Amino acid sequence: MARNFEAALADAATAVQSFLAAEIHTPLNVTLGEAMRYAVVGGKGLRGFLAMESARLHGVPALQAVMPAAAIECLHAYSLVHDDLPCMDDDDLRRGQPTVHKKWDEATAVLAGDALHAKAFELLARADFSEKTQVALLWSLARAAGGQGMVGGQAADIAAESAADPLDLDGIMALQKGKTGELITWSCLVGPIIADASLTPLRTYGDALGLAFQITDDILDVEGDAATVGKAVSKDEAAGKATFVSLLGLDGAKRRAAELVESAQDALSPYGKDADTLRAAAQFVLHRKK
Amino acid sequence: MARNFEAALADAATAVQSFLAAEIHTPLNVTLGEAMRYAVVGGKGLRGFLAMESARLHGVPALQAVMPAAAIECLHAYSLVHDDLPCMDDDDLRRGQPTVHKKWDEATAVLAGDALHAKAFELLARADFSEKTQVALLWSLARAAGGQGMVGGQAADIAAESAADPLDLDGIMALQKGKTGELITWSCLVGPIIADASLTPLRTYGDALGLAFQITDDILDVEGDAATVGKAVSKDEAAGKATFVSLLGLDGAKRRAAELVESAQDALSPYGKDADTLRAAAQFVLHRKK
Repeated sequence: MARNFEAALADAATAVQSFLAAEIHTPLNVTLGEAMRYAVVGGKGLRGFLAMESARLHGVPALQAVMPAAAIECLHAYSLVHDDLPCMDDDDLRRGQPTVHKKWDEATAVLAGDALHAKAFELLARADFSEKTQVALLWSLARAAGGQGMVGGQAADIAAESAADPLDLDGIMALQKGKTGELITWSCLVGPIIADASLTPLRTYGDALGLAFQITDDILDVEGDAATVGKAVSKDEAAGKATFVSLLGLDGAKRRAAELVESAQDALSPYGKDADTLRAAAQFVLHRKK
Repeated sequence: MARNFEAALADAATAVQSFLAAEIHTPLNVTLGEAMRYAVVGGKGLRGFLAMESARLHGVPALQAVMPAAAIECLHAYSLVHDDLPCMDDDDLRRGQPTVHKKWDEATAVLAGDALHAKAFELLARADFSEKTQVALLWSLARAAGGQGMVGGQAADIAAESAADPLDLDGIMALQKGKTGELITWSCLVGPIIADASLTPLRTYGDALGLAFQITDDILDVEGDAATVGKAVSKDEAAGKATFVSLLGLDGAKRRAAELVESAQDALSPYGKDADTLRAAAQFVLHRKK
């Protein structure tokens, strides 16, 4: 049965973070473990929630779903720690707290990211599913995270900053599908992958949701204030970067995000009312303030 | 049948590197793919060789063994690219060539390392083995590479540089088992994991080989010249770091390495003469000049 979205989001974050607090041990270097735990705490936990909710929709018990949910949160946390480094986006603030390299140092940030990256795959390789399911989850996550997915999108994003011509809408969409879209979609596919069900409805939902998420990110960079958003804002315009806002205008970007959220919600029709929590998640992405 | 070691090492490197040259594509950002390929080329390929040779000892065809061999070379290459970063060991030279962050920039080095890391797991998740074998390979590699293995050892190594007291022999051995030992041992276990055979002989071999490898690394840092070694030398003493040489003396370190190589070779007795190539590999580690 569908549940209140905010409660489901908070419950997923609690389950994932309490699991990871117990899971992350680094006997060779205590600081490394502290930095890893720091990096996975305090986020919205949207990807972990999406994984647990898509698993629930397919009858997977929460105790089993917490492993892939924790895996995607580790992977997401690693990507943020590396993205925040001085040689990348050079951010001092993340989730309203000092970034890992500000709280410790750059070496700790590189290594904590690397360790969280490996931890994501370790968790999937230990998860309580059939080996066929484990391999399907591992393969799809490695693809989504690597040079043809998230890391490729991040590299394209950095290259675009120093390129002579700003990207056009197709270029931005390809970049963002890699940088943020693939991992959001993977989170949504956890349930059907485990249940060996059709991937189509949740892939359509995830792709639309991921794009809407990025558009609202660009809108928050223009309209948000740093204290609420929890990270620096107005960075894109200062860097002269093409964004959905610079290409579509503020109203156009808002319209596009609303259309995407509507198609995301429509894609859930095979699941009926049981998918209302995911429908509410799409509304949340549209109206989020951070 | 056992073969000439140098030929087997060169053949394994050719197989792995030609596979990876075709495998690594990054349509979202061409530079990223160039940096990834650059990072996997030109090394000795010892880990890939160990994986292929241990597979051969268990009757696994070379065409199948190339995937785990390529995976461990990707993982090793990622670790070198990140270790060379200015915030880590700050090295300009690797394998006689400019390090990735010198040839490109730090952001490219962080991302190329991250993409190679994901590629290692992707290759294992795609390899042509039973799903049970794939999960066993993936799980053990993720453990060996993460915060309790390689990354943990690297973090301990960096922490030791700024610690008030230098490490003692037990501390150095624990650190090195994490930093370099676990991945060398994993390479040696590829064959018995795939064949579902006893891990004991090749685990003993790999643990001793890995430790001998690190001791000879410390010896090369004292006795080698940068042009031959292909990276900066005399770094440990300059940094005031405890090493096997500082703790055992140069002669003591050489004796210890020779003893370890002998036990590594002894551990191979269940394989008879068929393991002579691995015995020669242990001799190579002892007498290597780079």
